[in-house]
Amino acid sequence: MTQNIYDDPMFFANYGRLPRSLAGLDAAPEWPTLRALLPPIAGLDIVDLGCGYGWFCRWARAQGARRVVGIDVSHKMLERARATTTDPRILYLRADLERLALAAGRFDLAYSSLALHYVEDLAGVFASLAAALVAGGRLVFSVEHPIFTAPSHPGWSLARDGGKTWPIDNYLSEGLRRTDWLAEGVIKYHRTVATYVNLLIEQGFVLSRIVEWGPTDAQVAATPSLADERERPPFLIVAAGNDQRLIAAP
Amino acid sequence: MTQNIYDDPMFFANYGRLPRSLAGLDAAPEWPTLRALLPPIAGLDIVDLGCGYGWFCRWARAQGARRVVGIDVSHKMLERARATTTDPRILYLRADLERLALAAGRFDLAYSSLALHYVEDLAGVFASLAAALVAGGRLVFSVEHPIFTAPSHPGWSLARDGGKTWPIDNYLSEGLRRTDWLAEGVIKYHRTVATYVNLLIEQGFVLSRIVEWGPTDAQVAATPSLADERERPPFLIVAAGNDQRLIAAP
Repeated sequence: MTQNIYDDPMFFANYGRLPRSLAGLDAAPEWPTLRALLPPIAGLDIVDLGCGYGWFCRWARAQGARRVVGIDVSHKMLERARATTTDPRILYLRADLERLALAAGRFDLAYSSLALHYVEDLAGVFASLAAALVAGGRLVFSVEHPIFTAPSHPGWSLARDGGKTWPIDNYLSEGLRRTDWLAEGVIKYHRTVATYVNLLIEQGFVLSRIVEWGPTDAQVAATPSLADERERPPFLIVAAGNDQRLIAAP
Repeated sequence: MTQNIYDDPMFFANYGRLPRSLAGLDAAPEWPTLRALLPPIAGLDIVDLGCGYGWFCRWARAQGARRVVGIDVSHKMLERARATTTDPRILYLRADLERLALAAGRFDLAYSSLALHYVEDLAGVFASLAAALVAGGRLVFSVEHPIFTAPSHPGWSLARDGGKTWPIDNYLSEGLRRTDWLAEGVIKYHRTVATYVNLLIEQGFVLSRIVEWGPTDAQVAATPSLADERERPPFLIVAAGNDQRLIAAP
């Protein structure tokens, strides 16, 4: 069962102060990359795993999505999400992502932003999604990059030449990582890039593209502190189809 | 054009002293993983890119391969390879891997062990292989892992707790890396895991499995120094098919 850290008062308060919480998708520097991997949204039935405040759900409806289901384990996030919309075609549901009970062949697109690294049983989630997607359906998600989640003591070090390095250990030791981010004792699960890819393939998905995300030159010019993220990618973004006809990269 | 470092006298002499040079495939700890990703060898036409001393070519023939072509840029490696066999069904050819001229639909399997990170134009190599493989053909290769090739100063550091870490920087800065390994000024090309995967997909390959290689418990018990390799994988191993019917993992 997934830890519900977002309902921790300290975590929730701190999370609410992040730029992406206050200003939504456009405040997330990886959003243009994620967006570019999405199929045309108009007319699609979409499920958003770990919908949080519902920024993506509302964006998808504004793009003409037919129906959007946002799922989150956090009561507080869903309460906020529900307060932001009266759109009858957005449905917010509370569920543990590891205990999804989605109807078969119900969705054209499954989307998830920075949620699946909180999930222990990722094979189970991918199996649920493979069944819940229509033939030709797509899955696009981001997670914290395995290089980011691996270390036993994550953080930057100063290199000999004054540059920053990100010391890795434990990369091949998959499993629970306990970190202090916004609150103490946040539990996430480290897995390798290979495991993300192979679990998808084992569930019948065909990989169409992966991105180890880093900022563009323009983003670094606008926000110089983002330059560090080029030393090691903070996010892994994956696009896959559940149908062999869809192997062409988007 | 690929650097021909293997014909450097210092490099060649030092390379010849490595366990895998002296004892062949079984002295390479990643070989069991590579082997498990290969299709049944009997009856196949195989090309080995960066064949070196020809250990794999001879193994494949012993497994019943119909014909094996070993390609390498190094005169000295090929001279040694040719001296080890009189098998008329093994053909050793000298070529720059970036200037391959393989006949279309000629091979069932393309194999490459720790050679493609020396290649600058990897998209070109994958395009050549996509054309040279029969429908249903497979590509299995290993390279130095991007975590291994990324750093501007590759090497272990001691962590606060006494453990070893592998400091990363420059992960997202793809391109030339000049290192001193067996000789000075060895040139290799760093690219991300995503680039290896996406270049394959762009050339029409379907990914069937990737492995970020680390030693097994038994290997660490036999060779304790291998334990470090679990902190960060030294090798990336990829298996792909050039045909959509082949997406099932081997």
